[in-house]
Amino acid sequence: MTTTTRTQVAVVGGGPAGLLLSHLLARAGVASVVVELRSRREIEETHRAGILEQDSVDLLVDTGVSDRVLRDGYRHEGIELAFGGGSHRVDFTGLVGAATQLYPQTDVFVDLADARERDGGDVRFGVTDVAVEGLGTDAPRVRFTDAAGEEHELVADFVVGADGSRSLCRAQVPQAARRQYFREYPFAWFGILTEAPPSAPELIYNHSPRGFALISSRTESLQRMYFQCDPGEDVADWSDDRIWEELTSRVGANGYTLRQGPITSRSVLPFRSFVQEPMHHGRLVLVGDAAHTVPPTGAKGLNLALADVRVLAEELERAVAKGDPAPLETYSERALGRVWRTQHFSYWMTTMLHTLPDATPFDVRRQEGELALLASSVAGSTYLAEAYTGWPGAR
Amino acid sequence: MTTTTRTQVAVVGGGPAGLLLSHLLARAGVASVVVELRSRREIEETHRAGILEQDSVDLLVDTGVSDRVLRDGYRHEGIELAFGGGSHRVDFTGLVGAATQLYPQTDVFVDLADARERDGGDVRFGVTDVAVEGLGTDAPRVRFTDAAGEEHELVADFVVGADGSRSLCRAQVPQAARRQYFREYPFAWFGILTEAPPSAPELIYNHSPRGFALISSRTESLQRMYFQCDPGEDVADWSDDRIWEELTSRVGANGYTLRQGPITSRSVLPFRSFVQEPMHHGRLVLVGDAAHTVPPTGAKGLNLALADVRVLAEELERAVAKGDPAPLETYSERALGRVWRTQHFSYWMTTMLHTLPDATPFDVRRQEGELALLASSVAGSTYLAEAYTGWPGAR
Repeated sequence: MTTTTRTQVAVVGGGPAGLLLSHLLARAGVASVVVELRSRREIEETHRAGILEQDSVDLLVDTGVSDRVLRDGYRHEGIELAFGGGSHRVDFTGLVGAATQLYPQTDVFVDLADARERDGGDVRFGVTDVAVEGLGTDAPRVRFTDAAGEEHELVADFVVGADGSRSLCRAQVPQAARRQYFREYPFAWFGILTEAPPSAPELIYNHSPRGFALISSRTESLQRMYFQCDPGEDVADWSDDRIWEELTSRVGANGYTLRQGPITSRSVLPFRSFVQEPMHHGRLVLVGDAAHTVPPTGAKGLNLALADVRVLAEELERAVAKGDPAPLETYSERALGRVWRTQHFSYWMTTMLHTLPDATPFDVRRQEGELALLASSVAGSTYLAEAYTGWPGAR
Repeated sequence: MTTTTRTQVAVVGGGPAGLLLSHLLARAGVASVVVELRSRREIEETHRAGILEQDSVDLLVDTGVSDRVLRDGYRHEGIELAFGGGSHRVDFTGLVGAATQLYPQTDVFVDLADARERDGGDVRFGVTDVAVEGLGTDAPRVRFTDAAGEEHELVADFVVGADGSRSLCRAQVPQAARRQYFREYPFAWFGILTEAPPSAPELIYNHSPRGFALISSRTESLQRMYFQCDPGEDVADWSDDRIWEELTSRVGANGYTLRQGPITSRSVLPFRSFVQEPMHHGRLVLVGDAAHTVPPTGAKGLNLALADVRVLAEELERAVAKGDPAPLETYSERALGRVWRTQHFSYWMTTMLHTLPDATPFDVRRQEGELALLASSVAGSTYLAEAYTGWPGAR
C-alpha cells in the first residue's frame, strides 16, 4: 500500500542544500518534504571540510538556523599565498571588509537538520527506491520507500533535485533539453587529518616546484592538510613519514614549518568541473552539486550551493504562489551568472597555484610572474579577496 | 685597413631601444656608438604600430627626445572590452589615473634618430658584417663594415645587444650560461591598414565565438585592425570583401559597426613568447626584443624595451664609472621582474580574449564567466588597467 502525501515542494536530497531550502521555504509559508537516501548518522559521520563565505554565515544566522557557526567556527580574515621562498597575506578584511569562517560542512548539516527538527520540518532520512515522475505535468511525483519499508508518494507542485554530484534528478532531464559542461584536471588532492596543534592561524595556499599544498585547520587539536598528487595515487602507499616529508618539503620551500602528529585519515579528492544548463526542466529544478561541481581549490562547493538556495527559495515562493513554473527559469538564469564566475575563480586559483603536468619551463616562470604580480598589486589582491569571500553583498 | 674607435658603450642595434639607450647615456656623460644593419630609411618605411604606456611617453618627453609624441599622438584614457553581445569600458584614467598614447613605433624611431642627430650622437646605419668579440675580456670589440665599405672596430667597456628578436648578440652567450624560455600560440593575427575614418574613439578588444578582433586606429584617415587567424593563413587568400565580412561579423556580435575603406596593407603576425635569462653575460648585456618577445595582445613589446633601457642606462652608468660589470647583473635582476609580470599580462590578455583551438565547451563558458567577472569588478578592471598602462610610477 502506498501512502500519498500532498506538498508544495518535494525536495530530493537532505544535505545542506536541500535542508536549507526546506528551512527557507517554511519561513515563507511554503510546505515541503525532504527525502534523503542516507541516514542522518551516516551524513554526520562523513567528515567534510568547510570554509564559509561571509554571506553564507549571515544566511545561516539571520534566518535562524543557528548561531553555532559563530560560536564554534573560526573567523579567518585572510589567507597566506606562499610562493617563491616567501609568503604574501591577502587581507580580506582590509581589502574588502569581509571575512570567511572555518566551519565544517558536516556541522552545517547538523545545524540544519536540528533546525528542521526543531521547527517541525518533514525530512525523511534513510529512504530507498527514489523515483521522480510526471515532471511535464502540473503535479509531479516523488516515490520512495521509507526507512521502515513503507511505500510513499509525494505529489507536489515542484520537485527540487538537491541530490548531489551523482544526482538522480539531473538524469531526468532529457538530453535534448540540457547542455553539460565538463573539465577534468590532471591531478588530485591527497587530504589528511592529523592530531596536532594548528601550524598557522590562517590557511596557507602554498605553491612550490614539487606541487601545491594547502595547510588548513579544523580545531585546536585536529588539522586538515592537502597536497597535490596524481589522480591515481593509492593512500595505502603513503606512510605517515612519507606524507610529512612531502608536506614539509613543499611548505619548507617557502619558509613554513609544520606541527606534526598522528595522521588519522587520508583520502584522495578528485578534481572536476561540471555544469548542467539550464538548472530547471518543466517542474524540476536542480540546486547545488546536482547542477555543478567545482574543484576544491577555492573552497566554493558548499557556498555555491547555499547561494543557489538563497535565489531558489525566492523564485520557488513566486512559482508556488502563481502555480507557474516560469520563475524556475529566472532562478536558473540568476544562479548561472554566479556559477560561471565561481567556475572561473576556482579554475584561476587552481591553475595559478598547482604544478601543471604539461607545463613548459616558460609556463612555470610565467606562473611565478603571475603570483609575484598579484602579490604586488592591491587591485589584484582585492580581486582575489572579493571572489574568495564570495562577492559579499552582491546577490 | 680597419679604423679603431674607442668608446665606453658599443650598442648593436639602432631601433628604439638602442637609440634611447645611447640618448640616455649621453645625458649621463657616457659615450656610446650605435651600429645598425638597416638604413634609416628602411626602418622609417617599416610601419609598426604602437601604444605607449604613460611612463614611456614621460620618458621620451622628460629626457628631451621630443614632445611630438604629445602633439601627434592620441591620448587614450581607456579601452573597450567587447564580449557577450555588449561592451565594457575599462577607464584607465578613472581607475589608475593614467592613460596610454597611440603613437606608432616608427615615429618613436624617427624622434629618437632625430634627437641623436641633433645631439651629435654617433649612430652608424646600414652597416654589414657585424661581429662581437672579446666578451670575456675587459675590452670587448664590435667589428663591422660601414655603408661606404670601410672596415671598423669599436673597442668598448661594454657591449649592448639591442638587435631585436633575431639578435646576433644573444647568440654570443654560451648555452651553459643562459636559459631560454619559449611559448608558441596556436594562432596568429591578421593585420590590416585601411583608408577609412576611425570606427571608435578608443581601442576595442573584441571577443566573439568566431575569434578575437582588435579595432585600433592610426590617424583620422588611416585605421589599423586585426583579427585572430590560423598561423598558416595566406594573405593572398583574403580579398577586401572577405576581410570586412570577417571583421564585421566578429565585432557585430557585440553591437559594433565598422567604417570601411580600401585595405592598403595586410600581414600575418605570429604569436610567440620568449625570454632569455640572465640578460647579461660578461661585458655583454641584452635589452628589449633581443632578450624577450611578447605576443601583441597587450601592446607591450616596445614599452618593455623602453622600460629595460631606463634601468639599463642607470646600471651601465654605474658599471662604466666603476669599470666593473657587476651592475649588469643588477640590471638583469631588476629588468626580469618586469619582464615576467609583463609576460603574464600578455598571456592573460591573450588567453582571456582569443578563441583557443583546443578549448572544450566548458572552457568557452568559463572564459565568458571570466570576462563577465572582470567587467563586474572594479578591482579586476583596476588590475587590468594597472598592467595595461604599465604600472605607472613603479620602477
